[in-house]
Amino acid sequence: MVQRGDDLVTLLIDSLESAGESLLENDLVVVTSKVVSKSEGQVVAFDGTDEHKVAIVEGESRRVLRRRGTLRITETHHGFINANAGVDLSNADDGTAILLPKDPDRSARRIRGELARRLGVDVAVLITDTFGRVWRQGVTDVALGSAGLRPVLDLRGTHDATGRLLEATEVAIADEIAGAANLVLHKSAATPFALVRGLDPSFFGPGSVSENIVRSKNDDLFR
Amino acid sequence: MVQRGDDLVTLLIDSLESAGESLLENDLVVVTSKVVSKSEGQVVAFDGTDEHKVAIVEGESRRVLRRRGTLRITETHHGFINANAGVDLSNADDGTAILLPKDPDRSARRIRGELARRLGVDVAVLITDTFGRVWRQGVTDVALGSAGLRPVLDLRGTHDATGRLLEATEVAIADEIAGAANLVLHKSAATPFALVRGLDPSFFGPGSVSENIVRSKNDDLFR
Repeated sequence: MVQRGDDLVTLLIDSLESAGESLLENDLVVVTSKVVSKSEGQVVAFDGTDEHKVAIVEGESRRVLRRRGTLRITETHHGFINANAGVDLSNADDGTAILLPKDPDRSARRIRGELARRLGVDVAVLITDTFGRVWRQGVTDVALGSAGLRPVLDLRGTHDATGRLLEATEVAIADEIAGAANLVLHKSAATPFALVRGLDPSFFGPGSVSENIVRSKNDDLFR
Repeated sequence: MVQRGDDLVTLLIDSLESAGESLLENDLVVVTSKVVSKSEGQVVAFDGTDEHKVAIVEGESRRVLRRRGTLRITETHHGFINANAGVDLSNADDGTAILLPKDPDRSARRIRGELARRLGVDVAVLITDTFGRVWRQGVTDVALGSAGLRPVLDLRGTHDATGRLLEATEVAIADEIAGAANLVLHKSAATPFALVRGLDPSFFGPGSVSENIVRSKNDDLFR
């Protein structure tokens, strides 16, 4: 139960210790965005009414793409397209709503830097959240922020098994890793962390979700 | 290098043997759609021209949602929304284009049944393909067909760590598993199979991609 000002890195190190694990070079740590938001104080009062819900959601939005009842499909200030600007409104009992982290890439870099400083180990960090998909049922976890990982792996210019040059194949490994981590991060469990081990060393490197994953409006055929 | 009529299940069993692995209860096998298409003869002649490309793609489409140059955003006969109806046009050298499997759920059921018959073990099977995303850069692998897996896990009615009832949370685990498998299925390698082990037993059960993942037009705010 993370609160404003809580030190996520201490909680993460404690979790690893309880699990009998320690971080190794080329590990990746997934942190769900909700605990990042809470520790950073991205929480607002929420009175539980539909009017207030819509006001909070639209306040977190750069643009509203679709409206249906009180549901909003939004473009957030970060450039993410999601439902209700990613605001978690399920905490009405407490009188609060949880917003997305202000700058998830920066949050990831901060956690990564802290881990390097305190444990002396260079790992990658992903901040994840749960998004719907416009043309497929069910939600999946995706990356909101990253540090130390190449979010998109460029396989262009490599050859397939027949020696033929591959067509454009930029694989969004950040999102594939986020989804993989969600397979063990059951919502009913209290742990907001997952440890991903065994990734190919070529996955690690520079980049961020905002630079490499967020699609600009100009490239978009459906905005 | 799979050809029409090749027995994929024999190739899969041989691959497992070479890797020193054998299938266990509650394993899941991922098979990339391209080898399924080839073995099922879902291959057409392609002369390499733009006109022919567009004709093949539109022939595989129920509807065309967007056109930009020779790119088509399509709704396939299966109800998938993807680029160029999922047709693999990168084989122009051979004078062929590879279509998607006709009924990927049926293909998955057939492979699963064969594995049960020949190895006496009950595993789940996913057929996967690489799709773009409308609002995020980079492609990810998703499920086209499944057997033995609940493609969407319904967490509604379960409780979170505070005992609070969760909001609608239907997790598309089929797509999260497909993406996870793609992290090891490098396109430049010859292996079209991945073995996924350690999934929660609750993931296994009835359902199919066409029933549980394909979104009907009525639910769609962007079609």
